[in-house]
Amino acid sequence: MQKQSGVNIDLGNRSSQTAFSYARETFSNRKGKKGAVASKTDGGFSNLLIFGNERIGIGSDGTGTKAEIAERTQIYNTLGYDLVAMVSDDLSAAGFEPANLSNVIDVDYIDENIIAQMMKGLRDACNFSGITITGGEIAELGNRICGYGDRMHFNWSATAIGVLPDNLQTDIDGSKINAGDFVISLKSKGFRSNGFSAIRRILKEKFGDEWHNEQYDDKTTWGKKILTPSLIYAPLITSLIQKNLIPKGIAHITGGGIFDNLRRVLKMTNTGAVLDNLCSPLPEMLKIQELGKVSNEDAYLWWNMGNGMLLVVDEQEVERILQETRKKNYECQVAGRITADNSISAVFPSFTLTKKY
Amino acid sequence: MQKQSGVNIDLGNRSSQTAFSYARETFSNRKGKKGAVASKTDGGFSNLLIFGNERIGIGSDGTGTKAEIAERTQIYNTLGYDLVAMVSDDLSAAGFEPANLSNVIDVDYIDENIIAQMMKGLRDACNFSGITITGGEIAELGNRICGYGDRMHFNWSATAIGVLPDNLQTDIDGSKINAGDFVISLKSKGFRSNGFSAIRRILKEKFGDEWHNEQYDDKTTWGKKILTPSLIYAPLITSLIQKNLIPKGIAHITGGGIFDNLRRVLKMTNTGAVLDNLCSPLPEMLKIQELGKVSNEDAYLWWNMGNGMLLVVDEQEVERILQETRKKNYECQVAGRITADNSISAVFPSFTLTKKY
Repeated sequence: MQKQSGVNIDLGNRSSQTAFSYARETFSNRKGKKGAVASKTDGGFSNLLIFGNERIGIGSDGTGTKAEIAERTQIYNTLGYDLVAMVSDDLSAAGFEPANLSNVIDVDYIDENIIAQMMKGLRDACNFSGITITGGEIAELGNRICGYGDRMHFNWSATAIGVLPDNLQTDIDGSKINAGDFVISLKSKGFRSNGFSAIRRILKEKFGDEWHNEQYDDKTTWGKKILTPSLIYAPLITSLIQKNLIPKGIAHITGGGIFDNLRRVLKMTNTGAVLDNLCSPLPEMLKIQELGKVSNEDAYLWWNMGNGMLLVVDEQEVERILQETRKKNYECQVAGRITADNSISAVFPSFTLTKKY
Repeated sequence: MQKQSGVNIDLGNRSSQTAFSYARETFSNRKGKKGAVASKTDGGFSNLLIFGNERIGIGSDGTGTKAEIAERTQIYNTLGYDLVAMVSDDLSAAGFEPANLSNVIDVDYIDENIIAQMMKGLRDACNFSGITITGGEIAELGNRICGYGDRMHFNWSATAIGVLPDNLQTDIDGSKINAGDFVISLKSKGFRSNGFSAIRRILKEKFGDEWHNEQYDDKTTWGKKILTPSLIYAPLITSLIQKNLIPKGIAHITGGGIFDNLRRVLKMTNTGAVLDNLCSPLPEMLKIQELGKVSNEDAYLWWNMGNGMLLVVDEQEVERILQETRKKNYECQVAGRITADNSISAVFPSFTLTKKY
């Protein structure tokens, strides 16, 4: 079933595990030196790198095949938001304040104007997020890079580093989560940079090769609609932590959906969740789900379905976090509670999805 | 002329400048915060990021189209050396001790076995260099990634962070260089990860599509020969700085060759160099130059021609640096001297190349 999305999530996870097993064999290189990988109390490794008194996090990601939507619509100045969202929100989910970003643009050949528009968007997204762009590489790779149409094709990735705020003892890893804690959902504004292989397949099957030019409604085309840039949550999380409103766990909803990403946060305590008040999927998500006859199970595995980030918070702090979040102009709602049972259920009026771990 | 190499170096430089001008508009985001970009005395920006008492550098690069040689030879476990060389030797050239690396593998589809071989090589290269792999992403991008043959295709990039050793007041930026200083060349072991567009074009024109299988000599094929992994200079530079043998300037010879890369180091002082004893080009470089009828000027612009790194050092320290370098099993020789005239000349028995800046 998963194979249909266009990417094989199980195979991807397995390869990431293999990659990590090789990475682990390098950890001792920095032992007792700056850049040492911090150990966890359970013997595992955390995302923390120790440089003297500073605690730093690092993470890489890319815009995936959403880049094709920019090529199709010839709108290049919004994808920077997706790139920053992907890397900075992963850091934020571990409590790091994203600080610096280095990006790599792989192109077939250079189109100066397109690069300028991409960088303009990246600048705007970094200014929104309080991050500096402090590194970059444009690599001309000829026919190793392909895409839609006959303008410049590209793939775009970035690595960000973040700093752990002084009021956090360690990174946010879910270890303090208890049954009874609340789950707050931060609403998304559209598809982020995940699940685009499935989206493209479905729209192509329905509308043919030039699907992006089809009207979505009387205001916009399908191409422009699904290009909607990702909302970046990092500035909100940084601000909450500054106010000492510290979530016990944060799930950035990327590939694997709310289930696999929330599970990653709950793994340490082997808890579960009943989510009976998730944010509603955005209309375009429901339309694509319908067009592609995608099961609810798959839709919630491939896409964020309206929930871009989930915060696990202590009951005592729910109200203040909701207030602060709204004050920062992010939409949010209590989505459910943590349970002692290690399964995650998403409960809707007409169906319930449950995944046991 | 430059266009023939397969990449347009001028256009690339211009786009990098544009990208940097947008990046600069984000620098104020971290002013007075951790991750602030350090200013230079001349008003420019340095590569230094300030985190409390820690001084960190960051840089990104990739294996370029050398990846195709791995696809052609189906040897995937050496390219990690090229990747680490590209990113860590750039950091080293500014005085940073490379500490941590995060990598992004863009693939059309995942082949677990190939990923494992790549990561094995990356692990080995990081262990050689004292770096940890502390982040990674494998992105499945379908037909956006192309390459040779019908196995998995990929493009590979990485971002490394390094720490400035305590005995350096600031990053190595060439500002202390004087006419009369010595230039030491560190010998390379082959092509690094630059200039492969030209190499591939020339070998294809000579031998046809399956050029990699042609015998280079009685021991190896052309494919295997040019896949020779990059020598990583970072551990040597780290060790020299630890011993307080601090070069005044370090040029990592990548795209643009010894001229443009050395010029970057000499720019601050507007000095030049006469290099009358450079390391000799490796035999495969001379053969490819001959096959492609490449002018000496282009050859020294596209490829390292036997000189992977140039160190600008004070006369007082030349002998000790040569000794330490040889003790670490790196081949080196005095290649020339710094001059007050801002042109760079490479003097050979039968020809002289000069570039005025």
